[in-house]
Parts: sequence; structure tokens; C-alpha cells
Amino acid sequence: MAHGFDRTSLRAIARVAGVDSALVHHYFESKAELFIAALRPVPPDDDVLVYLASGPVDVMGERLTRVFLSLWGDPVRGPRLRTVLITAAGHSEVASAMRGLLVGEVLERVAKAVDVDDAPLRVAACASQLLGLAMSRYVLEIEPLAHASEDDVVALVAPTLQRYLTGDIGGIARAID
Amino acid sequence: MAHGFDRTSLRAIARVAGVDSALVHHYFESKAELFIAALRPVPPDDDVLVYLASGPVDVMGERLTRVFLSLWGDPVRGPRLRTVLITAAGHSEVASAMRGLLVGEVLERVAKAVDVDDAPLRVAACASQLLGLAMSRYVLEIEPLAHASEDDVVALVAPTLQRYLTGDIGGIARAID
Repeated sequence: MAHGFDRTSLRAIARVAGVDSALVHHYFESKAELFIAALRPVPPDDDVLVYLASGPVDVMGERLTRVFLSLWGDPVRGPRLRTVLITAAGHSEVASAMRGLLVGEVLERVAKAVDVDDAPLRVAACASQLLGLAMSRYVLEIEPLAHASEDDVVALVAPTLQRYLTGDIGGIARAID
Repeated sequence: MAHGFDRTSLRAIARVAGVDSALVHHYFESKAELFIAALRPVPPDDDVLVYLASGPVDVMGERLTRVFLSLWGDPVRGPRLRTVLITAAGHSEVASAMRGLLVGEVLERVAKAVDVDDAPLRVAACASQLLGLAMSRYVLEIEPLAHASEDDVVALVAPTLQRYLTGDIGGIARAID
């Protein structure tokens, strides 16, 4: 996080960790893989996912927005997520890992809990609004969104996510399938 | 665009252009400024802005989505916008120039044409969905959004932008002001 993805070598990481760089290579196939393993938020994820996937479907959009804001607003996780997002934008291997996290681990579980048709498109639509919220609020810091309260962001964004999850998305799926 | 922002020096640009680097510094205060000047889509922008700001307000969301998709889908402008977005994520000076372009030159004109209360928040909300569409469809390439037809994306995203522009966004503005 201090030097950025490009300016950090696996050799330097091994040196700081006091191990041989062959050992790092033994556990991680690439710098991108080590990067994701180091920066992904670890332990309470499962609780969060269980919380997300439970409860009434008609307020899933709000639950998703609140979890998202609490993760990005967290003093430890927030800067990590920001670093992952910025790096993903410029490195396809990190992008693919981030896609796997956001879509595969979070949003697809949410869609499964909602049990809707056209889940892949609904999931991608939610990802688009959430990634955009991250970019505008935490990376580009577009005001007044950057300093809006969590409740204000929920009022703005939760209806969007709710429509993407359970609302009318315009017979699109038929056209795509 | 070939070497990326970090690995391109003003001196190298001056050398390729066959001028003294002092001349480049005379016209551009920083590498970020030159970067934005070189990569921003130039001539037809004014036509696009006039088109965006005209026409019925109740389909402004659709117009905005279609203009966005035609810019990002353009074989010349698309890769430029992608480069600007990726670079903006990691460089605050480029981020600030991009904010100026998207919010100051495009979305604020749209909001002015719509003539709504709470314009700054509505503009920021539109920026969040559009940035997220760019990230998910063109940078992280999340399927099926990455290969959905323009009409399908319009059906998905235009109602979101329309609500952000003219719909009920939940008495948020009062809470922020």
C-alpha cells in the first residue's frame, strides 16, 4: 500500500518478511495473487455475507448499500479496498481477482438469496452502481457525494440497487440470452 | 497511451515532438495537464453537449446514456476515455481534471437544462452510475454487461439516471445543506 503495485517487487516483499523469495513463489503464483491475498478484507466477511443474504428481499438494496458503506468507511478496510480498486483499473490480473470477489463472492450470493430471473445481468448492474459509488465517493471524491452521510447515500442508491435486484429491468435478459 | 502515465516523461514527449522540453513546460504546467489535453475528446464535444441539453427532460436519462455509450464505444475516443479513467484512479491531479470534465462540463450542463433543485447531488449521483458503467463494462468487463447491446444498457441504466436527474431522491438535499 505504501509504494503501489508497480513499484513493489516480490523480492522486496520477501526481504521485508525475512524469507527467501522462492518461498513467496511457492505460495503465490504471481504478484497479483499475493496482492489480493494481502489486501482482501478477511475474517468477518462470512458474517457480512450471511447478513446480506438474510432478511426481507424488498429491502435488500438498502442492506447491500449499508454493508458497502460500512466496509468502505472502515478505517482499515476502506483504504485497502481503495487500493485494490485503483490497482484493478490498471492491471487485468487484479481486475479479474476483484471481479471474482465482488461478483462471485458477494453479489451472486445476494442474487441467490433474492432468487430472481436474469441473475447475471442483475448482479452486473448492481456491480456497476457499487463500483461507481466507490469511484465517485472514495476515489474521485465528487461532492456532495463524497461527504454525504450514510443515510443520504442509502436514500439515493438503495432504490437503484433494489430495482436492479428485484425490479423491472426491461425485458433485457431475453434480448441477451 | 502506449507506455502509461507513470512511465512517460515530459522530456520524452518533447523529444518525440522534436521540441525543447522548456517549450512543453511553457504550455503545460504539469504532466497531468498535458495528459488531459492530449487525451480528452475534442471537436464534436460541443455538438454533443448541445444535443444532451436539448430535447424533452423526461427522456434526459436515456439521452445521457446513449451519448455516454457512443463515446465509450467509439474506436478512437473509447480507449482514450479508458486510459483517462484508469489514470485518474491513481493520480489525484488527473482525477481532478476528469472530475472537471465529467461534472463541470457535461453533467452540470445537463442539470441546468433540466432545471431541478439539488442539482449538485443529482449530478454527483449521475456521475456515480456513469463511472460505474465505465468501470464495469469497459475496464473490469463484467459480463453480461460488457457485451450487452446499447439498447439493453439503456433499458437498464437510463431509468436510474432519469430518477437521479428528475425523480424523488429522498429529501436528501435538505439533510446535506
